[in-house]
Amino acid sequence: MARNLTQQLIEQHLVSGRMQAGEAVHLKIDQTLCQDATGTMVMLEFEALGLEKVKTELSAQYVDHNMIQADFKNADDHLFLQSAARKWGLWFSRPGNGISHAVHMACFGIPGKTLLGSDSHTCAAGSMGMLAMGAGGLQVALAMAGMPFSLTMPEIIGVEVTGKLPPWVSAKDVILEMLRRYDVKGGVNKIFEYYGPGLANLTAMDRHVIANMGQEMGATASVFPADEQVKNFLRQQGREQDYVEMKAEQGAGYDRRDSLDLSKLEPLIACPSSPGKVVTVRSVAGKPIYQSYIGSSANPGLRDFVVPAKMVDGRRISEQVSLDINPSSRQLLEEISRNGDLNRLLQAGARLHQTGCNGCIGMGQAPASGRISLRTVPRNFPGRSGTPEDQVYLCSPETATASALSGTITDPRDMDMEYPEFHEPETLQDMRPLMQPPRDFSKEVPVEIELVKGPNIQPLPEFEALAETITGPILLKAGSNVSTDEILPAGAEILPLRSNIPAISHYTFSRIDETFYQRATQHAGDSFVIGGENYGQGSSREHAAIAPRYLGVRAVIAVSMARIHRRNLINFGIVPLLFAKPEDLARLNQGDVLAVNDFPAQLKQGNQIVVQLAGGEILKVTHNMSEEEVSTVIAGGLINQVRKEHLIN
Amino acid sequence: MARNLTQQLIEQHLVSGRMQAGEAVHLKIDQTLCQDATGTMVMLEFEALGLEKVKTELSAQYVDHNMIQADFKNADDHLFLQSAARKWGLWFSRPGNGISHAVHMACFGIPGKTLLGSDSHTCAAGSMGMLAMGAGGLQVALAMAGMPFSLTMPEIIGVEVTGKLPPWVSAKDVILEMLRRYDVKGGVNKIFEYYGPGLANLTAMDRHVIANMGQEMGATASVFPADEQVKNFLRQQGREQDYVEMKAEQGAGYDRRDSLDLSKLEPLIACPSSPGKVVTVRSVAGKPIYQSYIGSSANPGLRDFVVPAKMVDGRRISEQVSLDINPSSRQLLEEISRNGDLNRLLQAGARLHQTGCNGCIGMGQAPASGRISLRTVPRNFPGRSGTPEDQVYLCSPETATASALSGTITDPRDMDMEYPEFHEPETLQDMRPLMQPPRDFSKEVPVEIELVKGPNIQPLPEFEALAETITGPILLKAGSNVSTDEILPAGAEILPLRSNIPAISHYTFSRIDETFYQRATQHAGDSFVIGGENYGQGSSREHAAIAPRYLGVRAVIAVSMARIHRRNLINFGIVPLLFAKPEDLARLNQGDVLAVNDFPAQLKQGNQIVVQLAGGEILKVTHNMSEEEVSTVIAGGLINQVRKEHLIN
Repeated sequence: MARNLTQQLIEQHLVSGRMQAGEAVHLKIDQTLCQDATGTMVMLEFEALGLEKVKTELSAQYVDHNMIQADFKNADDHLFLQSAARKWGLWFSRPGNGISHAVHMACFGIPGKTLLGSDSHTCAAGSMGMLAMGAGGLQVALAMAGMPFSLTMPEIIGVEVTGKLPPWVSAKDVILEMLRRYDVKGGVNKIFEYYGPGLANLTAMDRHVIANMGQEMGATASVFPADEQVKNFLRQQGREQDYVEMKAEQGAGYDRRDSLDLSKLEPLIACPSSPGKVVTVRSVAGKPIYQSYIGSSANPGLRDFVVPAKMVDGRRISEQVSLDINPSSRQLLEEISRNGDLNRLLQAGARLHQTGCNGCIGMGQAPASGRISLRTVPRNFPGRSGTPEDQVYLCSPETATASALSGTITDPRDMDMEYPEFHEPETLQDMRPLMQPPRDFSKEVPVEIELVKGPNIQPLPEFEALAETITGPILLKAGSNVSTDEILPAGAEILPLRSNIPAISHYTFSRIDETFYQRATQHAGDSFVIGGENYGQGSSREHAAIAPRYLGVRAVIAVSMARIHRRNLINFGIVPLLFAKPEDLARLNQGDVLAVNDFPAQLKQGNQIVVQLAGGEILKVTHNMSEEEVSTVIAGGLINQVRKEHLIN
Repeated sequence: MARNLTQQLIEQHLVSGRMQAGEAVHLKIDQTLCQDATGTMVMLEFEALGLEKVKTELSAQYVDHNMIQADFKNADDHLFLQSAARKWGLWFSRPGNGISHAVHMACFGIPGKTLLGSDSHTCAAGSMGMLAMGAGGLQVALAMAGMPFSLTMPEIIGVEVTGKLPPWVSAKDVILEMLRRYDVKGGVNKIFEYYGPGLANLTAMDRHVIANMGQEMGATASVFPADEQVKNFLRQQGREQDYVEMKAEQGAGYDRRDSLDLSKLEPLIACPSSPGKVVTVRSVAGKPIYQSYIGSSANPGLRDFVVPAKMVDGRRISEQVSLDINPSSRQLLEEISRNGDLNRLLQAGARLHQTGCNGCIGMGQAPASGRISLRTVPRNFPGRSGTPEDQVYLCSPETATASALSGTITDPRDMDMEYPEFHEPETLQDMRPLMQPPRDFSKEVPVEIELVKGPNIQPLPEFEALAETITGPILLKAGSNVSTDEILPAGAEILPLRSNIPAISHYTFSRIDETFYQRATQHAGDSFVIGGENYGQGSSREHAAIAPRYLGVRAVIAVSMARIHRRNLINFGIVPLLFAKPEDLARLNQGDVLAVNDFPAQLKQGNQIVVQLAGGEILKVTHNMSEEEVSTVIAGGLINQVRKEHLIN
């Protein structure tokens, strides 16, 4: 039977399981990627596994998140990661090289390979015919150790792309249209595979934008073919030899189908505070703005900076607006400096920031109180910008730039301007010479390399196995679409604590309820958290599981859960439970004491779990864990299980 | 009698007083300058004065310090300052334009004018024949209101400059040599006037470096003639019409003389943690470094970036080193982008940061724990980098770059490299079009402009007049050379609170004693602080006076005090007292209860003050306040006094 591209990618990496939607599959992982905010935990986990070196074809450690260095913590983390990369044979990308996703694609992406990354936007590399997925850090550590990645086989949605984007409409508008259709959970347990004649009009970097924000629909991955556009991209990077054509076989089927006519799209914008609240730019035009923000892994391409530069050429941005330029890579910054576009932006009044993730992850550039910020970033969850009750809109570079010029939200088609032409340069500066390559274990005399651990880098806490009976209060009842940004916020104050679980746990749920930490430590025992739909969407940070577990949370009961976070809960011994009937959510209140008897036995026996409520009532909940996942959560998490079962050798 | 240049500048601006060292003089202020970290307080003070507009020839408000925007506070401050500038007729320089001192010199500096700024490095403009001084914010607010600036007439030191700098030795080494001679308090109550044939070999920006760090000797100002070099600078900025020749008259005398033979200098470096701990680079060569930092108001010139760029051209910096490039102005960034030097730096592995003060004021770029940072910044006071127990060395761009290449502290003469040639370009991009000009009150229909105050912008606290008797404990006994960075730290956590005295007061003396705030609030009454020599050196931040006063400190007794801080104490109603005998310092201990009876009467009667110690002992202390200053401190500060005496009309 003809296979679509996703099926080919999975089949070529299938270690065990059946390629049937809903079944567990295990995949060989060729490449891994870590950024620094999750990477320190990955390296501590890899250290706990006790291996000599990574066993992937290629693993890379980037520094792009924690770049402010308000004190020693960020810098200490950088040195720790550099020493870990040196010790275990990873590539290390120094601060200033750029955002992991853009740099990885440029330096290491190879069609046909699998890539697992400790960052939810790892999926961006699906733009070049890879199967690229975000995962919790521990799973990336295990992939580095050579273990297969276990996954529920997703549904594959075939999206036929036709037509050509009109002027002033770009890749960001394509993914915003998808978000308009699917919202923030319509992609859960799905892979979106794009195909069709319209793809000839989307460059590899355009596809990166679309694949990147597939994550915002909750998708497991997005997959594009490796075709002429990908070949051009690799040639530009001096890596044409890495090109392999990858595409769906003639007549291949999909679990479901959708279609996108690019020529019908118009400028779109996601309103505060969800990437799924998409409307046309014209419908919100005229609102005064404080900020326009260009950059991030969701618009990292050269065109995303060149088009704004040409738009502002010879003009000046509004005195009221901060136009923040965040280069995505050293290569990009060099190119816009070389071709004059940087100066076009500066002379219009833009502010240039350091190369990296910056404000996208709340590391600076927070908007003023009560003011509107337009950003080309992937997410606008509440407060993620650093400003409580922020008003962040997500849009294309074209819309952000038009609005910076006018001072109000503006559809770029209404600017009475010629749409700037953009042509990809033949070649770009190779970034690999500025990375630390992995050491060659076959040639080098083995040297013991010491890990450099500053005072903030603390060992992973140890967690015990699941007890027979768990009794405790509901410490928090959260709403729907609670993101990991709300469970364990990022931002300039908290990100530097990522290597220190006891310290970072102070901020658990602080965006939702500032008393959580205090109540949890006063209670000092087992507890539960309740959630609505799509619990744990967004970033892959496993701290959103580790910190609650550290504070005693033993189970989360929700209506539904986001893929990566659900798995992170299991990895650290928190049982992910689901309401059998969503209306049962209303029966539970914060402070109610719950009990689960014979918890491990119930989990092993089937997917029905009985929860005792105070006053003798009974609540029936379910779980959707595989046998393997059940044994992980009973063991108290994956590290315990791996140690117990000697899965690593 | 022939007058030196300083005498001419003072005489031309003398409102009252005699030009005799040690006497009080009042000077007309032509221009003022504020940066954002002190500026919000200046604008709140100006608001309290109730005027319609500024009365200087030119006043400018810059945004260069609080640029991280970890949350809404920085951005809110920017909007507040922009609205204040619009309301009262100041120039407003948006974030991204650059460091106040470099931008002011380029856009507005005029030989022969006086400049008062709420930043201690305002003195940098002495490089172009101006009398430029830093002062507390309130005094700048009063200067904006048209009031003369009162000053103790300093001694004038004539420094004859001869010779020419050898290769690899630059302006930073000149001022480090001065610091080696005078240390951090040798310049107190002195103005250094440079003259002589060697000046022909120092550009206006070279002189900026020297004048800037004159502040580190404690000097009131540094003065250079306006000569051909200044004319060239103004021509480059498209402002040749602003040139006025200014120089000492033939045969002019000085209170004291010193001399500098440039040809005898070699690369110097200030060791942790004082700008006065100067040694030769070779004497500390070989120590491994973590960071090399280029930028700040103490090395803001084009040459300070071009020379490093040419040094690293075609080379790569050590993998161990973070080479942090901090452009000083939009103009400079545009120029190094245009001429290719930015790419030379990037291709060598440098990190480019946003244009502004950045790490110099602890806003990011903190070094890793226990690692060495080499910086071209003016100060290395303990912890100012953001890292406790930091090891910051101050050096030239040449030394910083050579060390980044080698990975260890390196004298650039030992690099086996040709010294790069540098030629100033004929013209540079005019920055004024990207500033908001003052409104024209004569032409504009008067519009009431509202001040934009975010939730963190709190009114100035009101302070009562000095009571007849002050009784209270010594809350802190500090050592010598305590800087305002230790009295009220800067850095990414604390700087955003500069518009909010109740909030920022939590950090008072926190670098010296973390319990200070708690002890002060528990005591909740009048108290004393004791200091050694040169108490309050460094930054001009008046928060270092306002916050202690807010917590009840009513008098500081020290062996000696830095000029700006002493005046800030008076401005906010803290009595600055001096030990009559330095050895009396040993008689006092933290916790001792002191009492001063008939305090106002004693201050008025003369400069001898009797302090009662517990157990009936007596301590005799003195003060060096003028009559006017005495009446200010008795009134409870300058705002009370101005209001009472209707000095503003």
